Amino acid sequence: MQRHFLQELEQLKNNIVRMGSIVEESVADANRAFVESSTERARKVIEREQEINSLELANDNGVVDLLALQQPVASDLRFILAALKINNDLERIGDHAVNIAESAISYAGRPPLDVKTEIPRMAQVTQQMLREALDGFIHNNTATARGVLQHDDLMDSLNRKTINDLADLLRARPGSVDQALELVRVSRNLERVADLATNIAEEVIFIAEAHIVKHSSDRDLRPH
Amino acid sequence: MQRHFLQELEQLKNNIVRMGSIVEESVADANRAFVESSTERARKVIEREQEINSLELANDNGVVDLLALQQPVASDLRFILAALKINNDLERIGDHAVNIAESAISYAGRPPLDVKTEIPRMAQVTQQMLREALDGFIHNNTATARGVLQHDDLMDSLNRKTINDLADLLRARPGSVDQALELVRVSRNLERVADLATNIAEEVIFIAEAHIVKHSSDRDLRPH
Repeated sequence: MQRHFLQELEQLKNNIVRMGSIVEESVADANRAFVESSTERARKVIEREQEINSLELANDNGVVDLLALQQPVASDLRFILAALKINNDLERIGDHAVNIAESAISYAGRPPLDVKTEIPRMAQVTQQMLREALDGFIHNNTATARGVLQHDDLMDSLNRKTINDLADLLRARPGSVDQALELVRVSRNLERVADLATNIAEEVIFIAEAHIVKHSSDRDLRPH
Repeated sequence: MQRHFLQELEQLKNNIVRMGSIVEESVADANRAFVESSTERARKVIEREQEINSLELANDNGVVDLLALQQPVASDLRFILAALKINNDLERIGDHAVNIAESAISYAGRPPLDVKTEIPRMAQVTQQMLREALDGFIHNNTATARGVLQHDDLMDSLNRKTINDLADLLRARPGSVDQALELVRVSRNLERVADLATNIAEEVIFIAEAHIVKHSSDRDLRPH
């Protein structure tokens, strides 16, 4: 029975990791679809949403079964509840990838905007944060997870700068409204993905250290 | 022991209901701060965030204790896990209330914009959805909870209309960029609160019927 339980814990972890890979791919594809004006790639992200939703449900049900049948305690219980939250965070990241993909499609259908924003950098930082949060989960590596937390403030300020730059653009070129509003939306969605990657990193640390990093007074995880 | 367990379940429910009331107040205050250009009221919302975060943590810890000490199964387990998710949803709603309050402060500091948007109606529908989701939770009333689900599409379309109206405004009056971008932000945050109220309503139905409403093919819960 004990061996069986350990196998089930391992299985839950593998399922979360698998979902993490698919969500990562969605974020990367959405960002690339935006940069390359590829509506085809954006549509793939939108189609993949259903798969991510199904995985979330399956993992949720797996957690309920584990709790009901095995009645775990202590560190196993902590791991399972953290997995439940990570599962939910990943699904939400998938939703934001869909939003970015939708903006990519809308943006690709209009005259391109000749403007330099921080969005490519935000996309790169966000993908790195998500990668490191998941790596931390896979290898129980709190050092990697802590690295993620350090990028959250950078993303906040990049988002703020992007919105300010786009406000300047809107004042100068009111004909670019539709494109600029899509860029605002992409910026905010990237910032939200970074927030959720931060949540995942916090859960990884919680699993390892039973230490609640969340809501510590010197950090700010609000969506923007 | 059984009586003790039932008391603890009741306590968990009361704690969630209490947090729900505070979050509801935050949303109402944020909306009112916006309409009345009251930076004082907006600041109260921002100050209240810390209290909401503390309640979320306390409830999370309560759930862990309940699971570890009582090892519940079947409908009790289902209730506890749903409570955990509702707890998380409420905290996120509190975050969005803070965003709206921040926008209220920024908006109040600029020349008022003479424009009619759907935002007051969105605020009203959102508050009603949240009220009904929490009422459904308090009274285990799935009919009330189902009513919430029916408003989600309306909120999506009101959000879309608001963004389109503001895009028109931006084209016509590029001098109003800063105010218009705050209105866009408020609209998206209200739409997200409505999404999260919908999540809560789904959890209420799940508790009552062990039926997963989430991700049913005819609905769309993505953040916008």
